[in-house]
Amino acid sequence: MKPIQQDIEARLKDLGIVLKEPKPPVAQYLGTKQTGNLLFVSGRVSELQGEIGTDITEEQAKVAARETIILLLAIIKQDIKDLNLISGIIKLQGFMRSSPHFNRQPQILDGASTLLMELFGEKGAHSRTATGVAQLPFGAAIQLDMIVELSSS
Amino acid sequence: MKPIQQDIEARLKDLGIVLKEPKPPVAQYLGTKQTGNLLFVSGRVSELQGEIGTDITEEQAKVAARETIILLLAIIKQDIKDLNLISGIIKLQGFMRSSPHFNRQPQILDGASTLLMELFGEKGAHSRTATGVAQLPFGAAIQLDMIVELSSS
Amino acid sequence: MKPIQQDIEARLKDLGIVLKEPKPPVAQYLGTKQTGNLLFVSGRVSELQGEIGTDITEEQAKVAARETIILLLAIIKQDIKDLNLISGIIKLQGFMRSSPHFNRQPQILDGASTLLMELFGEKGAHSRTATGVAQLPFGAAIQLDMIVELSSS
Repeated sequence: MKPIQQDIEARLKDLGIVLKEPKPPVAQYLGTKQTGNLLFVSGRVSELQGEIGTDITEEQAKVAARETIILLLAIIKQDIKDLNLISGIIKLQGFMRSSPHFNRQPQILDGASTLLMELFGEKGAHSRTATGVAQLPFGAAIQLDMIVELSSS
Repeated sequence: MKPIQQDIEARLKDLGIVLKEPKPPVAQYLGTKQTGNLLFVSGRVSELQGEIGTDITEEQAKVAARETIILLLAIIKQDIKDLNLISGIIKLQGFMRSSPHFNRQPQILDGASTLLMELFGEKGAHSRTATGVAQLPFGAAIQLDMIVELSSS
Repeated sequence: MKPIQQDIEARLKDLGIVLKEPKPPVAQYLGTKQTGNLLFVSGRVSELQGEIGTDITEEQAKVAARETIILLLAIIKQDIKDLNLISGIIKLQGFMRSSPHFNRQPQILDGASTLLMELFGEKGAHSRTATGVAQLPFGAAIQLDMIVELSSS
Protein backbone atom coordinates (compact mmCIF):
# COMPACT_ATOMS: atom_id res chain seq x y z
CA MET A 1 0.00 0.00 0.00
CA LYS A 2 1.32 3.39 -0.97
CA PRO A 3 1.72 5.78 1.93
CA ILE A 4 -0.37 8.98 1.72
CA GLN A 5 1.57 11.65 -0.11
CA GLN A 6 2.46 14.55 2.13
CA ASP A 7 3.46 16.72 -0.81
CA ILE A 8 0.48 18.59 -2.24
CA GLU A 9 1.93 18.77 -5.75
CA ALA A 10 2.31 14.98 -5.68
CA ARG A 11 -1.25 14.53 -4.45
CA LEU A 12 -2.56 16.77 -7.19
CA LYS A 13 -0.66 14.64 -9.69
CA ASP A 14 -2.05 11.43 -8.13
CA LEU A 15 -5.55 12.82 -8.63
CA GLY A 16 -4.76 13.84 -12.21
CA ILE A 17 -5.30 17.52 -11.43
CA VAL A 18 -3.36 20.13 -13.37
CA LEU A 19 -3.38 23.69 -12.08
CA LYS A 20 -3.66 26.01 -15.07
CA GLU A 21 -2.30 29.55 -15.02
CA PRO A 22 -5.30 31.53 -13.79
CA LYS A 23 -6.59 34.50 -15.73
CA PRO A 24 -6.09 37.77 -13.86
CA PRO A 25 -9.17 39.25 -12.14
CA VAL A 26 -11.40 41.16 -14.57
CA ALA A 27 -11.86 43.91 -12.02
CA GLN A 28 -10.01 45.99 -9.43
CA TYR A 29 -8.96 43.40 -6.87
CA LEU A 30 -6.26 40.89 -5.95
CA GLY A 31 -6.45 37.12 -6.23
CA THR A 32 -5.37 36.83 -2.60
CA LYS A 33 -4.39 39.12 0.26
CA GLN A 34 -2.38 38.05 3.29
CA THR A 35 -2.58 39.32 6.86
CA GLY A 36 -0.42 37.64 9.46
CA ASN A 37 -0.51 33.96 8.54
CA LEU A 38 -4.01 34.13 7.04
CA LEU A 39 -4.52 34.29 3.30
CA PHE A 40 -7.88 35.64 2.11
CA VAL A 41 -8.74 34.31 -1.35
CA SER A 42 -11.12 36.39 -3.48
CA GLY A 43 -14.39 34.97 -4.68
CA ARG A 44 -14.17 33.37 -8.11
CA VAL A 45 -16.93 31.87 -10.18
CA SER A 46 -17.31 28.60 -12.06
CA GLU A 47 -16.99 28.48 -15.83
CA LEU A 48 -20.34 26.70 -15.74
CA GLN A 49 -23.14 29.20 -16.14
CA GLY A 50 -26.81 28.83 -15.35
CA GLU A 51 -29.30 28.42 -12.55
CA ILE A 52 -29.09 25.21 -10.54
CA GLY A 53 -32.37 23.34 -10.55
CA THR A 54 -33.52 24.77 -13.85
CA ASP A 55 -30.69 25.18 -16.41
CA ILE A 56 -28.27 22.76 -14.79
CA THR A 57 -28.43 19.70 -12.58
CA GLU A 58 -27.15 19.10 -9.06
CA GLU A 59 -24.51 16.73 -10.42
CA GLN A 60 -23.23 19.27 -12.96
CA ALA A 61 -23.07 21.92 -10.25
CA LYS A 62 -21.13 19.61 -7.93
CA VAL A 63 -18.51 19.05 -10.63
CA ALA A 64 -18.37 22.82 -11.16
CA ALA A 65 -17.75 23.34 -7.42
CA ARG A 66 -14.79 20.96 -7.65
CA GLU A 67 -13.42 22.79 -10.70
CA THR A 68 -13.82 26.15 -8.99
CA ILE A 69 -11.85 25.07 -5.92
CA ILE A 70 -9.09 23.89 -8.28
CA LEU A 71 -9.12 27.41 -9.76
CA LEU A 72 -8.77 28.89 -6.26
CA LEU A 73 -5.81 26.58 -5.58
CA ALA A 74 -4.17 27.73 -8.82
CA ILE A 75 -4.65 31.36 -7.75
CA ILE A 76 -3.14 30.63 -4.33
CA LYS A 77 -0.19 28.87 -5.94
CA GLN A 78 0.42 31.82 -8.23
CA ASP A 79 0.66 34.08 -5.19
CA ILE A 80 2.46 31.93 -2.58
CA LYS A 81 4.39 29.70 -5.09
CA ASP A 82 4.23 26.53 -2.96
CA LEU A 83 0.94 24.95 -1.86
CA ASN A 84 2.81 23.02 0.82
CA LEU A 85 2.90 26.30 2.77
CA ILE A 86 -0.81 25.83 3.49
CA SER A 87 -1.14 24.62 7.07
CA GLY A 88 -4.94 24.67 7.17
CA ILE A 89 -8.09 25.39 5.21
CA ILE A 90 -10.02 27.60 7.62
CA LYS A 91 -13.23 28.75 5.97
CA LEU A 92 -14.91 28.07 2.66
CA GLN A 93 -17.83 30.21 1.54
CA GLY A 94 -19.99 29.03 -1.32
CA PHE A 95 -22.73 30.90 -3.13
CA MET A 96 -24.86 28.73 -5.39
CA ARG A 97 -27.09 30.35 -7.99
CA SER A 98 -30.28 28.49 -7.21
CA SER A 99 -33.77 28.20 -8.59
CA PRO A 100 -36.46 29.21 -6.06
CA HIS A 101 -37.06 25.56 -5.22
CA PHE A 102 -33.50 24.23 -5.11
CA ASN A 103 -32.20 23.84 -1.56
CA ARG A 104 -29.43 21.24 -1.75
CA GLN A 105 -26.57 23.76 -1.63
CA PRO A 106 -24.57 21.66 0.90
CA GLN A 107 -24.51 18.65 -1.44
CA ILE A 108 -23.11 20.83 -4.21
CA LEU A 109 -20.46 22.46 -2.06
CA ASP A 110 -19.28 18.97 -1.10
CA GLY A 111 -17.75 18.84 -4.58
CA ALA A 112 -15.24 21.41 -3.31
CA SER A 113 -14.96 20.26 0.31
CA THR A 114 -14.27 16.64 -0.54
CA LEU A 115 -11.39 17.58 -2.81
CA LEU A 116 -9.86 19.82 -0.14
CA MET A 117 -9.86 16.88 2.26
CA GLU A 118 -8.49 14.47 -0.34
CA LEU A 119 -5.63 16.86 -1.00
CA PHE A 120 -4.80 18.21 2.43
CA GLY A 121 -6.03 15.45 4.73
CA GLU A 122 -6.76 16.61 8.28
CA LYS A 123 -5.47 20.12 7.48
CA GLY A 124 -8.03 20.36 4.70
CA ALA A 125 -11.06 19.87 6.99
CA HIS A 126 -12.73 23.27 7.26
CA SER A 127 -15.65 25.36 8.39
CA ARG A 128 -17.94 26.59 5.65
CA THR A 129 -21.20 28.25 4.68
CA ALA A 130 -23.34 27.19 1.69
CA THR A 131 -25.89 29.75 0.57
CA GLY A 132 -28.33 30.03 -2.34
CA VAL A 133 -28.40 33.27 -4.26
CA ALA A 134 -30.39 34.65 -7.17
CA GLN A 135 -27.55 35.91 -9.35
CA LEU A 136 -23.75 35.71 -9.69
CA PRO A 137 -21.11 37.43 -11.85
CA PHE A 138 -21.23 36.29 -15.51
CA GLY A 139 -24.35 34.28 -14.73
CA ALA A 140 -22.13 31.61 -13.16
CA ALA A 141 -23.59 28.71 -11.21
CA ILE A 142 -21.07 28.73 -8.33
CA GLN A 143 -18.96 31.28 -6.49
CA LEU A 144 -16.36 30.30 -3.90
CA ASP A 145 -14.06 32.23 -1.61
CA MET A 146 -11.77 30.94 1.10
CA ILE A 147 -9.55 31.74 4.05
CA VAL A 148 -6.43 29.58 4.43
CA GLU A 149 -3.75 29.47 7.09
CA LEU A 150 -0.10 29.49 6.05
CA SER A 151 2.66 27.94 8.08
CA SER A 152 4.72 30.70 9.70
CA SER A 153 8.10 29.19 8.87
CA MET B 1 -29.92 42.90 43.20
CA LYS B 2 -28.14 39.85 41.86
CA PRO B 3 -24.73 40.61 40.33
CA ILE B 4 -24.39 39.75 36.63
CA GLN B 5 -23.19 36.19 36.22
CA GLN B 6 -19.73 36.00 34.73
CA ASP B 7 -20.06 32.28 34.09
CA ILE B 8 -21.69 31.62 30.71
CA GLU B 9 -23.15 28.29 31.77
CA ALA B 10 -24.82 30.06 34.70
CA ARG B 11 -26.16 32.78 32.43
CA LEU B 12 -27.56 30.21 30.03
CA LYS B 13 -29.29 28.58 33.01
CA ASP B 14 -30.64 31.96 34.19
CA LEU B 15 -32.17 32.45 30.76
CA GLY B 16 -33.59 28.94 30.76
CA ILE B 17 -31.50 27.92 27.76
CA VAL B 18 -30.43 24.30 27.40
CA LEU B 19 -27.76 23.48 24.83
CA LYS B 20 -28.72 20.23 23.13
CA GLU B 21 -26.16 17.89 21.62
CA PRO B 22 -25.94 19.15 18.03
CA LYS B 23 -26.43 16.79 15.12
CA PRO B 24 -23.24 16.32 13.10
CA PRO B 25 -23.02 18.23 9.78
CA VAL B 26 -24.87 16.47 6.96
CA ALA B 27 -22.04 17.20 4.60
CA GLN B 28 -18.24 17.29 4.33
CA TYR B 29 -17.29 20.01 6.80
CA LEU B 30 -16.48 20.73 10.42
CA GLY B 31 -18.70 22.49 12.94
CA THR B 32 -15.82 24.83 13.76
CA LYS B 33 -12.22 25.40 12.73
CA GLN B 34 -9.65 27.27 14.77
CA THR B 35 -6.73 29.39 13.59
CA GLY B 36 -4.68 31.21 16.19
CA ASN B 37 -7.22 32.38 18.74
CA LEU B 38 -10.02 32.76 16.20
CA LEU B 39 -12.72 30.13 15.88
CA PHE B 40 -14.65 30.06 12.60
CA VAL B 41 -18.11 28.54 13.08
CA SER B 42 -19.74 26.98 10.04
CA GLY B 43 -23.06 28.26 8.76
CA ARG B 44 -26.05 26.40 10.18
CA VAL B 45 -29.70 26.86 9.37
CA SER B 46 -32.82 27.25 11.48
CA GLU B 47 -35.23 24.38 11.96
CA LEU B 48 -37.89 26.82 10.83
CA GLN B 49 -38.40 26.51 7.09
CA GLY B 50 -40.05 28.93 4.70
CA GLU B 51 -39.74 32.33 3.10
CA ILE B 52 -39.93 35.33 5.41
CA GLY B 53 -42.66 37.72 4.38
CA THR B 54 -44.77 35.06 2.70
CA ASP B 55 -44.72 31.70 4.53
CA ILE B 56 -43.57 33.03 7.89
CA THR B 57 -43.75 36.27 9.83
CA GLU B 58 -41.00 38.59 11.00
CA GLU B 59 -41.67 37.61 14.61
CA GLN B 60 -41.37 33.88 13.85
CA ALA B 61 -38.13 34.50 11.99
CA LYS B 62 -36.70 36.52 14.88
CA VAL B 63 -37.38 33.63 17.26
CA ALA B 64 -35.72 31.28 14.74
CA ALA B 65 -32.64 33.52 14.64
CA ARG B 66 -32.40 33.23 18.44
CA GLU B 67 -32.76 29.44 18.25
CA THR B 68 -30.11 29.22 15.54
CA ILE B 69 -27.55 31.14 17.55
CA ILE B 70 -28.23 28.76 20.46
CA LEU B 71 -27.43 25.91 18.04
CA LEU B 72 -24.15 27.62 17.09
CA LEU B 73 -23.26 27.95 20.78
CA ALA B 74 -23.96 24.24 21.28
CA ILE B 75 -21.66 23.43 18.35
CA ILE B 76 -18.93 25.67 19.77
CA LYS B 77 -19.29 24.04 23.19
CA GLN B 78 -18.99 20.59 21.65
CA ASP B 79 -15.67 21.61 20.10
CA ILE B 80 -14.04 23.80 22.77
CA LYS B 81 -15.79 22.21 25.82
CA ASP B 82 -16.08 25.45 27.83
CA LEU B 83 -17.94 28.52 26.55
CA ASN B 84 -16.11 30.64 29.12
CA LEU B 85 -13.09 30.41 26.79
CA ILE B 86 -14.87 32.84 24.45
CA SER B 87 -13.29 36.25 24.90
CA GLY B 88 -15.24 38.00 22.16
CA ILE B 89 -17.91 37.58 19.51
CA ILE B 90 -16.22 39.14 16.48
CA LYS B 91 -18.47 38.76 13.45
CA LEU B 92 -21.96 37.40 12.89
CA GLN B 93 -23.19 36.78 9.37
CA GLY B 94 -26.88 36.20 8.79
CA PHE B 95 -28.62 35.16 5.61
CA MET B 96 -32.40 35.52 5.70
CA ARG B 97 -34.53 33.76 3.10
CA SER B 98 -36.67 36.70 2.11
CA SER B 99 -39.64 37.37 -0.11
CA PRO B 100 -38.91 39.95 -2.85
CA HIS B 101 -40.54 42.66 -0.74
CA PHE B 102 -39.20 41.83 2.71
CA ASN B 103 -36.31 44.08 3.75
CA ARG B 104 -36.27 44.01 7.56
CA GLN B 105 -33.34 41.55 7.81
CA PRO B 106 -31.64 43.59 10.59
CA GLN B 107 -34.69 43.32 12.86
CA ILE B 108 -34.67 39.55 12.45
CA LEU B 109 -30.97 39.16 13.09
CA ASP B 110 -31.46 41.10 16.33
CA GLY B 111 -33.02 37.88 17.67
CA ALA B 112 -29.51 36.41 17.61
CA SER B 113 -27.51 39.57 18.43
CA THR B 114 -29.55 40.44 21.52
CA LEU B 115 -29.03 37.00 23.01
CA LEU B 116 -25.27 37.18 22.41
CA MET B 117 -25.15 40.43 24.36
CA GLU B 118 -27.37 39.09 27.14
CA LEU B 119 -25.05 36.13 27.51
CA PHE B 120 -21.61 37.63 27.01
CA GLY B 121 -22.15 41.26 27.97
CA GLU B 122 -19.58 43.64 26.47
CA LYS B 123 -17.64 40.72 24.98
CA GLY B 124 -20.77 39.69 23.11
CA ALA B 125 -21.14 42.97 21.20
CA HIS B 126 -20.13 42.24 17.61
CA SER B 127 -19.89 43.34 14.01
CA ARG B 128 -22.35 41.70 11.66
CA THR B 129 -23.93 41.59 8.21
CA ALA B 130 -27.63 40.86 7.56
CA THR B 131 -28.46 39.87 4.01
CA GLY B 132 -31.58 38.68 2.20
CA VAL B 133 -31.25 35.65 -0.04
CA ALA B 134 -33.57 33.69 -2.28
CA GLN B 135 -32.85 30.18 -1.05
CA LEU B 136 -31.11 28.33 1.81
CA PRO B 137 -30.24 24.69 2.57
CA PHE B 138 -33.34 22.60 3.44
CA GLY B 139 -35.53 25.56 2.60
CA ALA B 140 -34.65 27.08 5.98
CA ALA B 141 -35.61 30.64 6.90
CA ILE B 142 -32.31 31.63 8.54
CA GLN B 143 -28.62 30.78 8.18
CA LEU B 144 -25.99 32.05 10.59
CA ASP B 145 -22.22 31.76 10.79
CA MET B 146 -19.83 33.40 13.18
CA ILE B 147 -16.24 34.20 14.08
CA VAL B 148 -15.40 34.16 17.78
CA GLU B 149 -12.21 35.00 19.65
CA LEU B 150 -10.91 32.59 22.27
CA SER B 151 -8.85 33.65 25.24
CA SER B 152 -5.26 32.60 24.68
CA SER B 153 -4.73 31.19 28.17
CA MET C 1 4.60 66.94 -9.87
CA LYS C 2 3.07 66.62 -6.43
CA PRO C 3 4.29 63.59 -4.49
CA ILE C 4 1.58 61.08 -3.55
CA GLN C 5 0.11 62.00 -0.19
CA GLN C 6 0.88 59.43 2.48
CA ASP C 7 -1.63 60.92 4.88
CA ILE C 8 -5.10 59.47 4.32
CA GLU C 9 -6.89 62.58 5.57
CA ALA C 10 -4.94 64.61 3.01
CA ARG C 11 -5.80 62.16 0.25
CA LEU C 12 -9.47 62.29 1.16
CA LYS C 13 -9.26 66.08 0.95
CA ASP C 14 -7.47 65.87 -2.43
CA LEU C 15 -10.35 63.75 -3.71
CA GLY C 16 -12.91 66.14 -2.26
CA ILE C 17 -14.30 63.50 0.08
CA VAL C 18 -15.79 64.56 3.41
CA LEU C 19 -16.47 61.86 5.99
CA LYS C 20 -19.79 62.66 7.65
CA GLU C 21 -20.61 61.57 11.19
CA PRO C 22 -22.23 58.17 10.60
CA LYS C 23 -25.65 57.40 12.04
CA PRO C 24 -25.50 54.72 14.73
CA PRO C 25 -26.61 51.20 13.69
CA VAL C 26 -30.40 50.80 13.72
CA ALA C 27 -30.06 47.42 15.36
CA GLN C 28 -28.14 45.51 18.01
CA TYR C 29 -24.59 45.55 16.68
CA LEU C 30 -21.35 47.53 16.59
CA GLY C 31 -19.98 49.51 13.67
CA THR C 32 -16.68 47.67 14.02
CA LYS C 33 -15.12 45.01 16.24
CA GLN C 34 -11.41 44.45 16.66
CA THR C 35 -9.54 41.20 17.32
CA GLY C 36 -5.77 41.31 17.38
CA ASN C 37 -4.84 43.76 14.63
CA LEU C 38 -7.86 42.92 12.49
CA LEU C 39 -10.89 45.21 12.43
CA PHE C 40 -14.16 43.67 11.25
CA VAL C 41 -16.49 46.33 9.83
CA SER C 42 -20.22 45.58 9.89
CA GLY C 43 -22.24 45.45 6.70
CA ARG C 44 -23.83 48.78 5.81
CA VAL C 45 -26.13 49.58 2.94
CA SER C 46 -26.22 52.33 0.34
CA GLU C 47 -28.68 55.20 0.63
CA LEU C 48 -29.63 54.32 -2.91
CA GLN C 49 -32.55 51.91 -2.92
CA GLY C 50 -33.83 49.69 -5.68
CA GLU C 51 -33.00 46.66 -7.77
CA ILE C 52 -30.03 46.95 -10.10
CA GLY C 53 -30.98 46.20 -13.68
CA THR C 54 -34.61 47.24 -13.25
CA ASP C 55 -35.06 50.26 -10.93
CA ILE C 56 -31.53 51.57 -11.20
CA THR C 57 -28.67 51.47 -13.69
CA GLU C 58 -25.22 49.95 -13.41
CA GLU C 59 -23.66 53.42 -13.36
CA GLN C 60 -25.91 54.59 -10.51
CA ALA C 61 -25.08 51.45 -8.55
CA LYS C 62 -21.35 51.96 -9.07
CA VAL C 63 -21.60 55.46 -7.63
CA ALA C 64 -23.58 54.03 -4.70
CA ALA C 65 -20.82 51.46 -4.07
CA ARG C 66 -18.31 54.32 -3.86
CA GLU C 67 -20.55 56.23 -1.45
CA THR C 68 -21.04 53.16 0.71
CA ILE C 69 -17.32 52.55 1.10
CA ILE C 70 -16.98 56.20 2.15
CA LEU C 71 -19.60 55.47 4.83
CA LEU C 72 -17.57 52.46 6.00
CA LEU C 73 -14.46 54.62 6.24
CA ALA C 74 -16.39 57.17 8.32
CA ILE C 75 -17.51 54.37 10.65
CA ILE C 76 -13.93 53.09 10.97
CA LYS C 77 -12.68 56.61 11.70
CA GLN C 78 -15.30 57.05 14.40
CA ASP C 79 -14.00 53.91 16.12
CA ILE C 80 -10.23 54.08 15.61
CA LYS C 81 -9.95 57.92 15.34
CA ASP C 82 -7.12 57.92 12.77
CA LEU C 83 -7.42 56.26 9.35
CA ASN C 84 -3.63 56.28 9.05
CA LEU C 85 -3.67 53.34 11.47
CA ILE C 86 -4.96 51.18 8.61
CA SER C 87 -2.05 49.10 7.33
CA GLY C 88 -4.06 47.07 4.84
CA ILE C 89 -7.50 46.49 3.34
CA ILE C 90 -7.81 42.72 3.59
CA LYS C 91 -11.26 41.68 2.39
CA LEU C 92 -14.22 43.48 0.89
CA GLN C 93 -17.55 41.72 0.60
CA GLY C 94 -20.23 43.22 -1.59
CA PHE C 95 -23.84 42.14 -1.96
CA MET C 96 -25.64 43.74 -4.89
CA ARG C 97 -29.44 43.62 -5.07
CA SER C 98 -29.78 42.37 -8.61
CA SER C 99 -32.52 41.71 -11.09
CA PRO C 100 -32.65 38.07 -12.24
CA HIS C 101 -30.74 38.99 -15.41
CA PHE C 102 -28.14 41.38 -14.02
CA ASN C 103 -24.73 39.76 -13.60
CA ARG C 104 -22.18 42.59 -13.68
CA GLN C 105 -21.68 42.71 -9.90
CA PRO C 106 -17.85 42.99 -10.23
CA GLN C 107 -18.15 46.17 -12.32
CA ILE C 108 -20.33 47.74 -9.64
CA LEU C 109 -18.08 46.76 -6.76
CA ASP C 110 -15.20 48.43 -8.62
CA GLY C 111 -16.78 51.71 -7.54
CA ALA C 112 -15.67 50.83 -4.01
CA SER C 113 -12.44 48.98 -4.83
CA THR C 114 -11.04 51.73 -7.03
CA LEU C 115 -11.51 54.34 -4.31
CA LEU C 116 -9.78 52.12 -1.74
CA MET C 117 -6.76 51.89 -4.03
CA GLU C 118 -6.78 55.61 -4.79
CA LEU C 119 -6.77 56.34 -1.07
CA PHE C 120 -4.48 53.69 0.33
CA GLY C 121 -2.28 52.83 -2.63
CA GLU C 122 -0.66 49.40 -2.42
CA LYS C 123 -2.10 48.86 1.07
CA GLY C 124 -5.58 49.39 -0.33
CA ALA C 125 -5.38 46.50 -2.82
CA HIS C 126 -7.61 43.75 -1.42
CA SER C 127 -9.32 40.43 -1.85
CA ARG C 128 -13.08 40.59 -2.35
CA THR C 129 -16.28 38.78 -3.25
CA ALA C 130 -19.10 40.32 -5.33
CA THR C 131 -22.43 38.54 -5.07
CA GLY C 132 -25.94 39.18 -6.37
CA VAL C 133 -28.80 38.88 -3.91
CA ALA C 134 -32.54 39.22 -4.10
CA GLN C 135 -33.11 41.57 -1.18
CA LEU C 136 -31.21 43.84 1.23
CA PRO C 137 -32.08 45.83 4.36
CA PHE C 138 -34.24 48.91 3.61
CA GLY C 139 -34.47 47.78 -0.01
CA ALA C 140 -30.97 49.14 -0.59
CA ALA C 141 -29.08 48.48 -3.82
CA ILE C 142 -25.67 47.74 -2.24
CA GLN C 143 -24.35 46.24 1.00
CA LEU C 144 -20.65 46.23 1.88
CA ASP C 145 -18.64 44.85 4.75
CA MET C 146 -14.88 44.75 5.20
CA ILE C 147 -11.94 43.40 7.15
CA VAL C 148 -9.03 45.80 7.60
CA GLU C 149 -5.63 45.35 9.20
CA LEU C 150 -4.39 47.91 11.70
CA SER C 151 -0.74 48.67 12.30
CA SER C 152 0.29 47.18 15.62
CA SER C 153 2.22 50.24 16.82
